Amino acid sequence: MTPLILALDFGGTKLAAALVAFGSRQWISQRRTLSPPNADANTDLEIMRSLIQDLLQGEKPAAIGVSFGGPVDATTGIVRLSHHVPGWENTPLSEILESEFGVPVSVDNDANIAALGEHRFGAGQGYESLLYITVSTGVGGGWILNGRPWRGAEGMAGEIGHVVVEPAGPLCLCGKRGCVERLASGPYIAASVQELLQQQPEQGQVLRSLVGNNPDLLTAQIVSQAASLGDDLALRVLERAGWALGVGIGNVANLINPQRFVLGGGVTKAGVCFWSVVQRVAHETALPEVNFEIVPAALGDDAPLWGAVALASIDFKYY
Amino acid sequence: MTPLILALDFGGTKLAAALVAFGSRQWISQRRTLSPPNADANTDLEIMRSLIQDLLQGEKPAAIGVSFGGPVDATTGIVRLSHHVPGWENTPLSEILESEFGVPVSVDNDANIAALGEHRFGAGQGYESLLYITVSTGVGGGWILNGRPWRGAEGMAGEIGHVVVEPAGPLCLCGKRGCVERLASGPYIAASVQELLQQQPEQGQVLRSLVGNNPDLLTAQIVSQAASLGDDLALRVLERAGWALGVGIGNVANLINPQRFVLGGGVTKAGVCFWSVVQRVAHETALPEVNFEIVPAALGDDAPLWGAVALASIDFKYY
Repeated sequence: MTPLILALDFGGTKLAAALVAFGSRQWISQRRTLSPPNADANTDLEIMRSLIQDLLQGEKPAAIGVSFGGPVDATTGIVRLSHHVPGWENTPLSEILESEFGVPVSVDNDANIAALGEHRFGAGQGYESLLYITVSTGVGGGWILNGRPWRGAEGMAGEIGHVVVEPAGPLCLCGKRGCVERLASGPYIAASVQELLQQQPEQGQVLRSLVGNNPDLLTAQIVSQAASLGDDLALRVLERAGWALGVGIGNVANLINPQRFVLGGGVTKAGVCFWSVVQRVAHETALPEVNFEIVPAALGDDAPLWGAVALASIDFKYY
Repeated sequence: MTPLILALDFGGTKLAAALVAFGSRQWISQRRTLSPPNADANTDLEIMRSLIQDLLQGEKPAAIGVSFGGPVDATTGIVRLSHHVPGWENTPLSEILESEFGVPVSVDNDANIAALGEHRFGAGQGYESLLYITVSTGVGGGWILNGRPWRGAEGMAGEIGHVVVEPAGPLCLCGKRGCVERLASGPYIAASVQELLQQQPEQGQVLRSLVGNNPDLLTAQIVSQAASLGDDLALRVLERAGWALGVGIGNVANLINPQRFVLGGGVTKAGVCFWSVVQRVAHETALPEVNFEIVPAALGDDAPLWGAVALASIDFKYY
């Protein structure tokens, strides 16, 4: 019988689990639910246990892969913390699940997991070196080098969000100025637009009408929508976001010379203007001899689960 | 009998060859000479052949490692070109030497070679991930990841010199603005000081006296000397160079999270002020959770030859 892989996704606000036969590209079954607003680590673990029981129906998987939305020590499977859910500090997640299910468990953070998923099943298939970048609430990244995850000496590799691209730029939460995340993440895009709307009452008419003149309702998604309708101010802020991401990507290309950059996350759906700026600036920033492609992620919402399958498969020695 | 390793260094203006017993840290013998001013690839090859004959005295090495001062395809051993010596375009250097000596030959560019040398014999011993950076006429780098050279998809990895750290900064030869190399390489340090000396006749008195009021005599070395004597203008330019390198290093730390940065090349001898700026800015630029050390290279002038020994040893399967 083909062995089963169990994939789990602790996503901060969402929990998901899915079961797949090794080598298959179709879920046998999957379960999803929201993490309750006042959840802590124990609540999330309890909910996940019930999703798993519901999925397994008494069957036993051969391996478990886990995507966690926060910093993880992938070598020990210990969660460092969650930025969204309290109580996760130093939780030995892989040990807990291994003792409960009696099978090997691999855990990694969502960016590394998404990189693995895209490499194995998505836009990175056949590419032995790539950086996956998510541009969403934050900007993060995960490496594949020599066809394997590269996590860095202490698991901190991939932090393209905190590469400085504009040293005199605006202050980031991390304390530095002009980080990629400060210019390109969704919340900062919305905040920059809010600021400009206040300063320049003549501009951003499309934006203003989209939020019924209530700038508090602004999101990066609405900014994208306004840009696609030609709003001057929205276009300006998205162009700057694309520029920041492009400089970051071009610098990475010069440093590591990977074959591909795979871009996921809500902000990368901002449309053709955003993408064309990213592509142009990235190639301008890289040396002329440095070749690479920038492509959209292919796995969508299932990315963490498919990545968890890929991770479990490595551990399972079938990769 | 212990096998012999032959190490060769085509350095652009210098040629060197050395012979060592496998596993030893002492040369059996070595030969050095200058490449004549009007040399081409054939002249350099002829001179190298005579150095080798002189060294070998009829003995046969078990492997040959070669450091080349210019872009090389390390997988095929084909030299792409030399920026200093004409006629090297697409020269199959490893094939030429293999057919002449009948032993395996490995070739790589000087930055990758220096990284390997420092990893095996110098300041990188025991560190499985490091970036070697040379700050000299240019700024280049070589990676060790997982204890092995990482050259990138097309051999272009390590170009920290062309990471942009000041997008609105001065124009670099590569066509971009504010590259690390544009702010931190020796010739650009000298050029920046020359410019400031013209603009600010009241400043740089120590500098002026060191060059007898002839700014054409300025070199990065003299700038360092003036800085160590407290010259305001020299200190300012070196501080900016250190800042650029520090931002580059901090960004690399966030992206790849290596254990060490090993710094070689003339400019890194600029003294304690330069080093303290590099250290401070690099750690300020990296996220607080990202740890690393920045240390001076240990191998000095013999770095390319020891690196060539390390490269030949890999090929030789004894590494």
